[in-house]
Amino acid sequence: MAPTICREPDFCSVAPEARAALAERQLAAFAERESVVHAFVCHDEEAARRRLAQHATGPLSQALIGVKDIIATAGFPTRYGSNNPAVIGPRADAWCVAESERLGAVILGKTVCTEFAYPLPGPTTNPHDARRTPGGSSSGSAAAVAAGFVSFALGTQTAGSTIRPASYCGVTGFKPSYGLLHLEGVQAISSTCDHLGVFARSPRDAWYFVSALISKEPEIVAPRPPRRVLQIRLPAEIPQGDGYPERIEALMAALRAAGVAATAIDLPFPTDDFRGLQQELCYWEAARILLGAGGSHLVPELRSLLAPYLDVDLAPYSAARRRRQAYQAQFEALAAGYDAILLPAATGIAPPLASTGDAIMSRFWTALHVPAITVPMWRSAKGMPLGLQLLGRIGEDKALAEIAQWFSLSE
Amino acid sequence: MAPTICREPDFCSVAPEARAALAERQLAAFAERESVVHAFVCHDEEAARRRLAQHATGPLSQALIGVKDIIATAGFPTRYGSNNPAVIGPRADAWCVAESERLGAVILGKTVCTEFAYPLPGPTTNPHDARRTPGGSSSGSAAAVAAGFVSFALGTQTAGSTIRPASYCGVTGFKPSYGLLHLEGVQAISSTCDHLGVFARSPRDAWYFVSALISKEPEIVAPRPPRRVLQIRLPAEIPQGDGYPERIEALMAALRAAGVAATAIDLPFPTDDFRGLQQELCYWEAARILLGAGGSHLVPELRSLLAPYLDVDLAPYSAARRRRQAYQAQFEALAAGYDAILLPAATGIAPPLASTGDAIMSRFWTALHVPAITVPMWRSAKGMPLGLQLLGRIGEDKALAEIAQWFSLSE
Repeated sequence: MAPTICREPDFCSVAPEARAALAERQLAAFAERESVVHAFVCHDEEAARRRLAQHATGPLSQALIGVKDIIATAGFPTRYGSNNPAVIGPRADAWCVAESERLGAVILGKTVCTEFAYPLPGPTTNPHDARRTPGGSSSGSAAAVAAGFVSFALGTQTAGSTIRPASYCGVTGFKPSYGLLHLEGVQAISSTCDHLGVFARSPRDAWYFVSALISKEPEIVAPRPPRRVLQIRLPAEIPQGDGYPERIEALMAALRAAGVAATAIDLPFPTDDFRGLQQELCYWEAARILLGAGGSHLVPELRSLLAPYLDVDLAPYSAARRRRQAYQAQFEALAAGYDAILLPAATGIAPPLASTGDAIMSRFWTALHVPAITVPMWRSAKGMPLGLQLLGRIGEDKALAEIAQWFSLSE
Repeated sequence: MAPTICREPDFCSVAPEARAALAERQLAAFAERESVVHAFVCHDEEAARRRLAQHATGPLSQALIGVKDIIATAGFPTRYGSNNPAVIGPRADAWCVAESERLGAVILGKTVCTEFAYPLPGPTTNPHDARRTPGGSSSGSAAAVAAGFVSFALGTQTAGSTIRPASYCGVTGFKPSYGLLHLEGVQAISSTCDHLGVFARSPRDAWYFVSALISKEPEIVAPRPPRRVLQIRLPAEIPQGDGYPERIEALMAALRAAGVAATAIDLPFPTDDFRGLQQELCYWEAARILLGAGGSHLVPELRSLLAPYLDVDLAPYSAARRRRQAYQAQFEALAAGYDAILLPAATGIAPPLASTGDAIMSRFWTALHVPAITVPMWRSAKGMPLGLQLLGRIGEDKALAEIAQWFSLSE
């Protein structure tokens, strides 16, 4: 299967007068390859072309975007990845969609997500190898950017649904600090773990998009070389394959050789909570959010997963909330001394299509609310992408994008 | 002006077979006094009577409730306290409304809130004195419970919109830990400060309602005597009138006389952040949430308040996020040694109608995400209620309700 990978530059480096041609090339790529990639649940090229022809102004004018199908849109139905015809979202734009359009962006369509973000694979394939998963749950968003159909895609991350698919698909995935991007209109899974995430061609493009949404003017960050970085070494029981450990070691050595204070520590949090804290919080909250009325609209696997959590008392959940708070303070104390904390973005390359992969590299950090970004850094022996994950201090989202931009150019 | 105060028992102490008669008395009180109290924006007694006649089963069956008008409902329009006819919410039940109805509750109507929770007074009067405010922004929710129109009311708290009106109206106001109650369907103001709040006749009623929403079975807590309590003494520049300091001192002395380890400390957080941290976070977030499309639907005062925050860079906001995180850890370390932390619920009694009062006693704790509850404890020389505010550790919501129930019986 021939790979169908985008070679376009990042959006913020394209002159405004060249954006229309970029959008045309993206629509051509979409017409040619979507039948293999299956990134979209629904799409409307005609409406997109009409919108492009209006030449709206704004920092995102002529930017084609994809929107994960758990994010409500006025222009498209919202089905939350469900095949149940009774499951249909409000016909109104979520905050992030309305803002993107106000800034000039053009929605090509709704991207495939796993049903209510439960990891049952959808139809999307990895643009690097159609026998492999793009990851999940923001499957179509990652694949649409990797395949060059759109410049940006909106996704979400409650466990690892932005960082992991971005790594598998070889694009930048950025999950800003908790609360930085407003979640109105996004199907909730977990009140204290849900985040919006964005997919883009580079860290600076990701920050261009996010800063357009939250700042007066979008910002194009310059690459910033790190002075101090910290590698978190994970215990042996956390799977790391496809050459990840060696590549991270080599990167650390190269950083040290370049004069960066690059140090490593063993995971300074209990392994049990690294593996399970996010699930303990998320499943307790998700059971109450999704199963209130019985959850008969959900896929049975998700119902079965969540149902026992309706019986879980407040006490263990509350204890998990307090442990989270202690880890947040501990992370902040640790991260304050570094420009970035680094570890793998996934356990390896994208697995075959039967699974959407393992979110273990992201869950814990998502629960801690800190910003995280994937930089596409390496290729495996099989030619599949492997992403570097960088974590920053809460609210230091821009600084993280600057550092990540430097890493993205350092391959 | 004759006071119009409810003398009914709390809901959870009423036998199921006596609930219908309670609802009838509430509807009679509503018919008699709503023209003075103005607690509701819209109401439908006929629909409520039809629903009551169905004798739905469930822990909240026959419970009349009021729903703050920034919370979406299928059965009533949602106007966010606005007079602008173009402002209209989705005709779908918010999570808390759908769950309440599923558990048997009957919505009497939508309660008055200040416009998008900005503190411009609405028409509601304080049931204890119609020349005074019920507080805001959950004005009608507090007044409807105080006047005996409903057993419970749903409100919100982003600064002090549950704790303060509950204090002014002499009812229990409970703001659970951040994220404990899902906010789907509630108009967002601030991604990291918004909370649902509930109004009830007692702390155990408040917990009965909240636990019905999040647990398998609703819980009726027993009053739990505190062993260790901590009073936070506020600096002189924080206004405290109407006998608050003396009453808190007398309460502390009575606690010590009863063998409780009751200690006091001066506010262990910077006064500037006690006053301003929540606003710094909230206004930055609210500007992005509410002014995206220009905010032309908003009252001009609110637009003017928020507009400058669109120009505020991410950096000071991020710094405020990190200070919040440090204070959360500091609060947890402090609170771990006590059964409750206590301070006034407001700066004094309800002021005259021209204002909705000052949220200074709540803002900071709201930003910290910890559970807070108002216990109606005292009357001022003018006969107006003064509430005691109790704060607990994150997630220790049930324990806080138990302690608060003890205080509510200790007057």
